[in-house]
Amino acid sequence: MNNSWFTLPTLLLAIAVVPAEATQDERRVRGEKVIETLAGTGGQPVLQQMHKDFPFLAGAITDYALGDVWGREVLDHRTRQLATVSAFAAQGNLPQMKIHAGYALRLGVTPDELKEIIYLTTVTAGFPRAIDAAQALREVLASADASPP
Amino acid sequence: MNNSWFTLPTLLLAIAVVPAEATQDERRVRGEKVIETLAGTGGQPVLQQMHKDFPFLAGAITDYALGDVWGREVLDHRTRQLATVSAFAAQGNLPQMKIHAGYALRLGVTPDELKEIIYLTTVTAGFPRAIDAAQALREVLASADASPP
Amino acid sequence: MNNSWFTLPTLLLAIAVVPAEATQDERRVRGEKVIETLAGTGGQPVLQQMHKDFPFLAGAITDYALGDVWGREVLDHRTRQLATVSAFAAQGNLPQMKIHAGYALRLGVTPDELKEIIYLTTVTAGFPRAIDAAQALREVLASADASPP
Amino acid sequence: MNNSWFTLPTLLLAIAVVPAEATQDERRVRGEKVIETLAGTGGQPVLQQMHKDFPFLAGAITDYALGDVWGREVLDHRTRQLATVSAFAAQGNLPQMKIHAGYALRLGVTPDELKEIIYLTTVTAGFPRAIDAAQALREVLASADASPP
Amino acid sequence: MNNSWFTLPTLLLAIAVVPAEATQDERRVRGEKVIETLAGTGGQPVLQQMHKDFPFLAGAITDYALGDVWGREVLDHRTRQLATVSAFAAQGNLPQMKIHAGYALRLGVTPDELKEIIYLTTVTAGFPRAIDAAQALREVLASADASPP
Amino acid sequence: MNNSWFTLPTLLLAIAVVPAEATQDERRVRGEKVIETLAGTGGQPVLQQMHKDFPFLAGAITDYALGDVWGREVLDHRTRQLATVSAFAAQGNLPQMKIHAGYALRLGVTPDELKEIIYLTTVTAGFPRAIDAAQALREVLASADASPP
Repeated sequence: MNNSWFTLPTLLLAIAVVPAEATQDERRVRGEKVIETLAGTGGQPVLQQMHKDFPFLAGAITDYALGDVWGREVLDHRTRQLATVSAFAAQGNLPQMKIHAGYALRLGVTPDELKEIIYLTTVTAGFPRAIDAAQALREVLASADASPP
Repeated sequence: MNNSWFTLPTLLLAIAVVPAEATQDERRVRGEKVIETLAGTGGQPVLQQMHKDFPFLAGAITDYALGDVWGREVLDHRTRQLATVSAFAAQGNLPQMKIHAGYALRLGVTPDELKEIIYLTTVTAGFPRAIDAAQALREVLASADASPP
Repeated sequence: MNNSWFTLPTLLLAIAVVPAEATQDERRVRGEKVIETLAGTGGQPVLQQMHKDFPFLAGAITDYALGDVWGREVLDHRTRQLATVSAFAAQGNLPQMKIHAGYALRLGVTPDELKEIIYLTTVTAGFPRAIDAAQALREVLASADASPP
Repeated sequence: MNNSWFTLPTLLLAIAVVPAEATQDERRVRGEKVIETLAGTGGQPVLQQMHKDFPFLAGAITDYALGDVWGREVLDHRTRQLATVSAFAAQGNLPQMKIHAGYALRLGVTPDELKEIIYLTTVTAGFPRAIDAAQALREVLASADASPP
Repeated sequence: MNNSWFTLPTLLLAIAVVPAEATQDERRVRGEKVIETLAGTGGQPVLQQMHKDFPFLAGAITDYALGDVWGREVLDHRTRQLATVSAFAAQGNLPQMKIHAGYALRLGVTPDELKEIIYLTTVTAGFPRAIDAAQALREVLASADASPP
Repeated sequence: MNNSWFTLPTLLLAIAVVPAEATQDERRVRGEKVIETLAGTGGQPVLQQMHKDFPFLAGAITDYALGDVWGREVLDHRTRQLATVSAFAAQGNLPQMKIHAGYALRLGVTPDELKEIIYLTTVTAGFPRAIDAAQALREVLASADASPP
């Protein structure tokens, strides 16, 4: 779906493990690299606005969620996005599910693979949650079709 | 962790898609094959008891959840179990999470890969859910160590 | 509220229990009859769209949720809809609650009976969920007043 | 299952609507009558303990939940218990589900009717919740068999 | 932010504890005084509409939630609003969170104190819930800036 | 309840804000100071075990949740613990609620103040959640009575 996938191994080599002497500044830089990999060079708009009025939250998302967690290496990025979409679909957190379904598409996950996660959601969380998630995914797929990378 | 993994491709070839003329009996047989793949020849004890006093529920789990959903082919079994563990950890459904973490180990998922799902849960569902899930996974791993296949 | 209620006993006689030799095609037909009883001959629009882009999910809803579960006979349709509205109100699943409140009205449940379920929700799930459910039910009742069958 | 059912109409005539001049004392008496109808003359042990160390909560349950809500008349007691069991099963609140399944049995609801609520829960809240609820109901039914009224 | 804060001690002296002989009418009056303290003389619009079509629910909110619970004295109003905003943020109940964040501002809680509750929510309920709550609080603060009392 | 409260202002002066050049090691030390303040010199046993088998999770709890979030200064520790207990009670997360109710008692919050949070929970999350939380708090209070500091 785009070519950011090919730059991923290089990125991952660079960010590997947080050394004990890593500073806050270094964590921030690492988190910003991850968000660029997932969301593209435009960045993630919700996060950018948040840096202005909820700076601690925006910082924590960048440093911890993106840098520390998404920067880890044991699972590949595709599997992790599928597991994340599954978690958000099961919880009924549709805005987050849509963001991560978009990241998954950028990483080369296919629409049919994402639909399988929805079908799985009928078992983990029931039909209503699966129906909600299907409608949210439909919007993500329509939007990706409208603006291919 | 065991060798049931090697028989999986054969099984999957056999169960592929439910043809329109498939009967209830045929769906039941397919669901029973999937449960054998995931849980071993001993079967799944909770499900076996349920066939006695909640027959419709046990039948639906076997025919629909196991046969129709888990019998699908687009995602591989390992990715699907990781996505399922992620969903149950995020919801705080620990008994179900433990069952599927056990299935994942049987399919060759490593303990470290399962721990990554827990770490991811701090982001999708918060620290309390991740702590609960870590403690549940610890029990699964201890139990797998105590009785290797 | 409409006369589909009078055709219900006949329908129920027809769909009774799924015999072991029932085929997928027969389950589909049965599910479609149930949806016609609940939603009218126009069908359920969310479900119709889903047959196109999430065919497995639409099929599962029709065959399993509608055919297998709603086609059962032990509880009457009215009690089952009230129990379903109660479950969705307690979970805060308002879109689903509205769909089933609409089905309930079609089956002859009165607005005052539905309001009792809302009042009960203050006990099962707290005031916020009850307030949300009241506002959702208000829309269903306004819509039913605007287009009587 | 017991004969408290036959005294219900009399009780309901007595408690009908809370008049504007009803005092706190009168609400308390009404709530205590409802709990006697549902739980028998032994009372509800969790509630009795709570009157000692969480008196406001115990009072609110008695006066509001039992007196004001369960003392209402539009729905019959059986339908209301089934709707309540459905709500608690969908939420995964098993201790509360068990209490109300016990009340339902006392009011003459059959085990098979309660099982239908469980089957319905596969649709409203997914298989895991239904499995949990089935196991909880099994305990209620075993306990009712062991000590018939 | 406004001067209703200064009248609070007087109000609280007046409503203290519900005497056993308090009537329904007296509880209603007390609840209405609390809502005036929290929401101003204009009242709470959601509640006012509800008195018309869901009278039992509107009455219960006024008499029980506002009169009985919010009229209590052990915790001060500010702490209670912060605890309430924390609960609603953790549950993801944003409409209720916004109502109570508005009450908190009226009682003199600062925007920075409310933001701390959001930051805390990353720990109690995860980043997604905190992100949702931050966006909801942003709207409350913008609205308070636009119409200072 | 103990005298760790008196050392708190000193601690808070020390940890104030994370400077951009703070290293991972420094964050760890700060988090460990906070846990000592909240849980006493014995530390928090769940966390200590987790450092062995889920090291990333234990590190994140120490560095982020305890160091970064609980080390902040805008709200005082007592208000923050009350808000946290309120969030966990509303979510029905009882193990976490008990840990933080214990921290609150250590910081000088009274049992009656904690009971108010339970009473508030009837409004934010319904009677069942409040009943569960009351029973959990009862255990915390009994345990604190049995082993006063």
